[in-house]
Amino acid sequence: MNSTKAFAPATIANFNVGYDVLGLSLNGIGDEVELTINGTEENRIIHIKNGAELPMESEKNCCSVVIRAMQENLGEFRGVDISILKGFDSGSGLGSSSASSAAAAFGYNSLVGNPFGKKELIVFAAEGERIACGSAHIDNVAPSILGGFVLANSNDPNNIIELPIIDNLFAVTLFPKIKINTSDSRKILKKNIPLETVSRQIGLMGAFISSLYDNNLERFSYSMQDLIIEPMRSLLIPQFNEMKAASLKHNALAFGISGSGPSVFAITEGIENTNQVLMALKEVCDAANLETQTYTNALIKNSGARLIK
Amino acid sequence: MNSTKAFAPATIANFNVGYDVLGLSLNGIGDEVELTINGTEENRIIHIKNGAELPMESEKNCCSVVIRAMQENLGEFRGVDISILKGFDSGSGLGSSSASSAAAAFGYNSLVGNPFGKKELIVFAAEGERIACGSAHIDNVAPSILGGFVLANSNDPNNIIELPIIDNLFAVTLFPKIKINTSDSRKILKKNIPLETVSRQIGLMGAFISSLYDNNLERFSYSMQDLIIEPMRSLLIPQFNEMKAASLKHNALAFGISGSGPSVFAITEGIENTNQVLMALKEVCDAANLETQTYTNALIKNSGARLIK
Repeated sequence: MNSTKAFAPATIANFNVGYDVLGLSLNGIGDEVELTINGTEENRIIHIKNGAELPMESEKNCCSVVIRAMQENLGEFRGVDISILKGFDSGSGLGSSSASSAAAAFGYNSLVGNPFGKKELIVFAAEGERIACGSAHIDNVAPSILGGFVLANSNDPNNIIELPIIDNLFAVTLFPKIKINTSDSRKILKKNIPLETVSRQIGLMGAFISSLYDNNLERFSYSMQDLIIEPMRSLLIPQFNEMKAASLKHNALAFGISGSGPSVFAITEGIENTNQVLMALKEVCDAANLETQTYTNALIKNSGARLIK
Repeated sequence: MNSTKAFAPATIANFNVGYDVLGLSLNGIGDEVELTINGTEENRIIHIKNGAELPMESEKNCCSVVIRAMQENLGEFRGVDISILKGFDSGSGLGSSSASSAAAAFGYNSLVGNPFGKKELIVFAAEGERIACGSAHIDNVAPSILGGFVLANSNDPNNIIELPIIDNLFAVTLFPKIKINTSDSRKILKKNIPLETVSRQIGLMGAFISSLYDNNLERFSYSMQDLIIEPMRSLLIPQFNEMKAASLKHNALAFGISGSGPSVFAITEGIENTNQVLMALKEVCDAANLETQTYTNALIKNSGARLIK
C-alpha cells in the first residue's frame, strides 16, 4: 500500500461538566488527510483545500508534525506527500487542528502496518495540538480518534476512557461566524474556583458518567451543568443566553459551549426534537442578524477516525 | 407492630474524589436504634448506651429530631420511646450522628407502615445532621441508608445515585484516638482552588465512577486521588503520611481521610491483602504510641440501614 486517505471528525471538547478532560466526536463533520509514500525521508504538504491560512511548511503543519513524531518513535522515516481537505472552519471551537492531526496519525499508522494502537495514536496526534495551539491537550484528539465520549485524564493511554453512548441522541452544533481570540478566551477564565462550586461540579461529573452507564436521560440532562467555564466564556458569544433558553424551551437535554467557542451545541433526543431545536437556534440567530453554520450529528459508537480509501 | 429495632452503618464521607458528595457505607459497624410506640404524641429519648455526651432532650437529639420531621411531614404524631446503642465513637469522622439518624429514620418508617421510600428517608435523616453538625449534608446519611457507594448531588432523591460495587474489596478503617476540632478541620481548607487542579479532580471523579461500572481495579486505584482536601486535612492527622505510605507499599488500592478525620481508610483487594495492610497500619501507629481503633469491612451491596428486630 502506497497511499491512504483517512477521515477524522470534529469534536466538542470541554464538554460542559469536564473542562479540559471530556470530549465528544461529531461523526459527520471532519477533515480528510491523504498520504502517499514519496520515496524520500521527508514529509511534504502538497495541498490544503479550504484552509488557505494553514502553514505549508512541514515543521509548522500539524499533520506533518504528527507524522514526524510517529516516524521518530519508530526510527523509520518513510516520507509522505500530504493532502489535507478541511471539512470545517478553523477557529470554530470544534477541534479543527485536532481533526487534521487525528486523521494524519490514523492514516500514517495504517500506511506503515498499524504499529500503534488507537490510544497510542492520541499521544502522537497531541503533538499536532502542541504545534497548532501551543499545548498538547488531548481532549479533542482523543474523541476524534476513538469516537464517542472520551474522558482523558492524562496522556497515559491507561487514563483515556471510552464511555458508553446513550441511543437516539443527537448533537446540534452551531458556529456563529465571529472570531474569538484564543487568548481572550483563556484570559476570561477565573484562575481560582470557590470550593463549594468545585464540589458541586465534581458531583455533576460523577452523575454525568453514571447517567451514560445507566442509560438515564433525566440524570444526563440534570448533570449537564457547567458551573465554572460557561458563566465566563458565554460572555464572548453573541446571543448565548437566548440560544440556550430557546434550546431548553424546545426540550434540548443540554446546551453548552464547544471547546473555547464560539460554537455552541445542544444535545437532543430523537430526530424530530433535534429539528425543532435546530430551527429554534436559527431563529434566534436570524433575528440578531448573526451569520451561522449548523450541523446535526447522531451520537454513535465507532464514530472516530477511519480510512476512507 | 409496636416496636422496632433498626441498625444503620458507619460511613466514609468525602470519599477521596468526592468532597461533600461521595460516601461509602461500612457494613459491620454502626448504631442501633430501638423505637417503641408510647401512646403519646411526644418522642422521648429513654436510653443512650455508649454515648454519654449525647443530648437526652428530644429537641436536641438527632434521632428524635429526625422522627419529628417525619411525623410533621405525615401530619400524624405517633410518639415513640427511643433507645440508642452507639456502636462506635462520635468524633471519629465515621458518621456517628448520621448512623443514629439513619437508623431512626429507617426504624420509624417501618414502624408506621413504610410511607416513605429509602431515598426520601435520606432527607429526613439529614435533619439529624443539621441538629448534630449544623448543616443538612447528606453524604453520610445517604450511604448509611442505601448502603454501598452513594453519590449525592443534592437533597432531591433523583440526584442521589447508588453506584455499583466491585467484588472482593475491603475497607480498612483506622481511628486514631485524638480529637480534631470540627471548626479547625473546616478552617484549614482552602476557600478557592486553582482551575487546573479542579479540572484534574473532576477528571478523577469521572474515572472513578467509570471504574466501578467497568469493574476496573487499576483505574479505581489510579482515580482515588484527593488533590484538594487531603493536602490540608492530612496535616491534622498524626502519622498520616507514614500510614499512607505503608498502606500503598502493601498494595492498598487507595488511602484517604474519612469525613473530616481523624479516621483514615485504605481500600484493599482480598482478605489476605486486607490483613497485611491492617498490620502495616497498626505497626506505624504502635511505633508512634498512637492509640487506635481499627475496623475491617467487606464492601458489599445491601449494606445500608436494616431492621434487626
